Amino acid sequence: MSAEEFRQYGHQLIDWIADLFANIGDFPVFPDVQPGDILSKLPKAPPVKGEPMGEILADVDRVIMPGMTHWNHPRFFAYFTSSGSAPGVLGELLSAAFNVNGMLWQSCPSATELEQATLGWLRQMLELPSEYFGIIYDGGSNSTFHAIAAAREQFAELEIRERGLAGRSDVPKLRLYTSDQGHSSIDKAAIALGLGLDSVRRVAVNDQYQMNPQALEEAIAEDRSVGVLPFCVVATVGSTSCTSIDPVAAIADISERECLWLHVDAAHGGAAAVVPEMRYVLDGCERADSIVVNPHKWLFVPLDLSVLYTRKPEVLRRAFSLVPEYLRTIPGVEAVNYMDYGIPLGRRFRALKLWFVLRYFGVEGITARIREHLRLARQFAKWVDDHPEFERLAPVPLSTVCFRAHWPGMDDDDLLNHFNERLMQAINHTGEAFLSHTKISGRFTLRLVVSHLWTSEAHVARVWAVIQRHFQLLRDG
Amino acid sequence: MSAEEFRQYGHQLIDWIADLFANIGDFPVFPDVQPGDILSKLPKAPPVKGEPMGEILADVDRVIMPGMTHWNHPRFFAYFTSSGSAPGVLGELLSAAFNVNGMLWQSCPSATELEQATLGWLRQMLELPSEYFGIIYDGGSNSTFHAIAAAREQFAELEIRERGLAGRSDVPKLRLYTSDQGHSSIDKAAIALGLGLDSVRRVAVNDQYQMNPQALEEAIAEDRSVGVLPFCVVATVGSTSCTSIDPVAAIADISERECLWLHVDAAHGGAAAVVPEMRYVLDGCERADSIVVNPHKWLFVPLDLSVLYTRKPEVLRRAFSLVPEYLRTIPGVEAVNYMDYGIPLGRRFRALKLWFVLRYFGVEGITARIREHLRLARQFAKWVDDHPEFERLAPVPLSTVCFRAHWPGMDDDDLLNHFNERLMQAINHTGEAFLSHTKISGRFTLRLVVSHLWTSEAHVARVWAVIQRHFQLLRDG
Repeated sequence: MSAEEFRQYGHQLIDWIADLFANIGDFPVFPDVQPGDILSKLPKAPPVKGEPMGEILADVDRVIMPGMTHWNHPRFFAYFTSSGSAPGVLGELLSAAFNVNGMLWQSCPSATELEQATLGWLRQMLELPSEYFGIIYDGGSNSTFHAIAAAREQFAELEIRERGLAGRSDVPKLRLYTSDQGHSSIDKAAIALGLGLDSVRRVAVNDQYQMNPQALEEAIAEDRSVGVLPFCVVATVGSTSCTSIDPVAAIADISERECLWLHVDAAHGGAAAVVPEMRYVLDGCERADSIVVNPHKWLFVPLDLSVLYTRKPEVLRRAFSLVPEYLRTIPGVEAVNYMDYGIPLGRRFRALKLWFVLRYFGVEGITARIREHLRLARQFAKWVDDHPEFERLAPVPLSTVCFRAHWPGMDDDDLLNHFNERLMQAINHTGEAFLSHTKISGRFTLRLVVSHLWTSEAHVARVWAVIQRHFQLLRDG
Repeated sequence: MSAEEFRQYGHQLIDWIADLFANIGDFPVFPDVQPGDILSKLPKAPPVKGEPMGEILADVDRVIMPGMTHWNHPRFFAYFTSSGSAPGVLGELLSAAFNVNGMLWQSCPSATELEQATLGWLRQMLELPSEYFGIIYDGGSNSTFHAIAAAREQFAELEIRERGLAGRSDVPKLRLYTSDQGHSSIDKAAIALGLGLDSVRRVAVNDQYQMNPQALEEAIAEDRSVGVLPFCVVATVGSTSCTSIDPVAAIADISERECLWLHVDAAHGGAAAVVPEMRYVLDGCERADSIVVNPHKWLFVPLDLSVLYTRKPEVLRRAFSLVPEYLRTIPGVEAVNYMDYGIPLGRRFRALKLWFVLRYFGVEGITARIREHLRLARQFAKWVDDHPEFERLAPVPLSTVCFRAHWPGMDDDDLLNHFNERLMQAINHTGEAFLSHTKISGRFTLRLVVSHLWTSEAHVARVWAVIQRHFQLLRDG
């Protein structure tokens, strides 16, 4: 493609995106399609001849847009939202144009050093200790996977890296602890690392869905008494179901005493610590061995950009470093080679988008936006609390509200579960808003997450109106 | 950022990239910086106030450009090159703007179904069997990691997913085989999966650096005789050192007889199979259990986009699927949820850039470009062969040439190794070209890889001139 052609279609696509961003609130959040509908619009075979860029871009409207779930929609309230903010999009564009692989310092010095600089900035914004080493992975699941791999590696004398876990009588069963609200990525990591699903012990929570430290201590003691080796605790700051925040300081007391690796999953919740009055959510995390925070969740950076901080980078490095001859660099040059700290060898220049976002908004701008999300969630929670036919099902420590319809005289939880599931589907089918759900204490729970850059009070008010309308229709219908 | 501001700076950045692409040959390929030089230009603390986008973009020139290793430079011949082609860059831009997470079908139907469609196209281009299921991961290391995880999972009766490998007397040592040219990602996967580095047995190669099937058979028999459980073979199509191609059909005979999972690492080499007269490089791969091909290597798609095909998606799914309540979707809707097939939960809309690239170039356009790369590499190999003071150190089955300076009367390999290392550094320091190295049979080997979209005969001729000039300077100096 000539420079002129790139310029022409680049401008066209930028304009298209500007229009999309300006009008995204007019699109349905969730598309009205069935599985296979998009596939059926696409040719079965690849094109033999090249096609004009103009036709390809036209097919974005014709083929792709009808099947989009618009995560950038201000009334997308599902899962944990993520904002493809405009400066972040420009950062990603530049990264794609450079197309470097930052596996080694020398394979792109700017990529390595901008990663060091921006992760230093973010660390300061979160008031984490200066000795923390940061590294970018694609997502929270991989950050946690690498943290647990490092936790496994701390027993150097077991030579797990060299000799593995199988067929050995000298390696006991290992155990990892997390609350029953801990994320599924912890289980996936345990499977992948050869520890097994049964190496994850789910610790009971209190009535605010926070890990009970005493239950943790008892679980550890019980495991030790039968020859199981406790090695890791994953505490959660902002659980996926209801954003509960574990008592990290109390858990750190235990993990220090018991010599366990303490990993903190603050993938979503960590961002809140940028707001001074919310900094307490990371209390105790300064004692963690590792902590994951995802700027692509609540810090307005487009997917994918997850950050793992660890105070023991040498353990992470020992777990993963392998330098074949074709990747050996010039002797005598001392620099961080990020490929040494994980599975991925290819590493995009992700720090660019973080740099663009942190600079464009500034710490004050980011703080103001997150503070407003917290306010809007409390606002919504109050509407729920004040409504006789809805109830809140969990505290709102961050900006996620867990609630359900529950009206006087209706006390059959099975019926309520069924009703609320239908209510959610009815709302989502309107395309006016997109909610997701969880189960809390067996109850089907609607989740409303306020963390998109473009979500304002009017959007939250509108989804509340939609919810009430469909509640009436369903109950009376 | 307002739509108008996004339009303004988007256009500015597109123009900047168009200029970069038009003039990239004028930049040094490798920057003249020392570790810390870029970092020292960046503020230590994050900006408190937001900054104008114009200033941020200006700092790309001031701060970032001086530390860039230009992977998109037509005289970048190191590692395996990757082209951030213009249509691919536009695809990535759109993906960042949509910013969807394609973890579930419903979280973005278009992302899931475009992935299905484009991976079907690519599968046909490679003439792989229609029953192959495809999935996009970030890079080849993760594709291979997931393939080996599936290989481990095939012994369902061992319940490794549930019970892990440690502390069990009923799980023997597992063994995986690859040639001594196999990629380091195989070792990293073995470490991560709890198998241990010693679970990877390196099988000898012939004089063309291809795995010796008889040596493989002997290794398997020897392992079985001492109670080790062989479970996987990784064959390589295009090894990283010298792009050697293992005899996959012969290896498939053995792996079928021995009930081993056959994974093929065709991350780089698979792309060559798009060229009809090169299709033979994948002979036998139709019998593999899984195969990885990286469109971000030699198919002009920007990083990151690696494809794993497997004929046993149910095993991959069994290894990794875990659906917590907050990710459960509507019962009755049958669709692929790609999150079920691996560690990552967040999944960018990567298929867009693959779609843009395949359509813009078409199969014919891609074929012509790869064919030209193959021709240029053979051309360069002939120059080396014809030169009395250089020698080629490996066959050139694809577009990578392994060679070194070696002049009459000089037969001390240690001195030659030292000389060639200094030669490579001298060339790279000029900024005129960027080469990387490997070791083949103990000899320091320069590698020249011709696989960038913008590399023409003139660029290859120029690097050859640079190599000869610095050879003279070093030898005479």
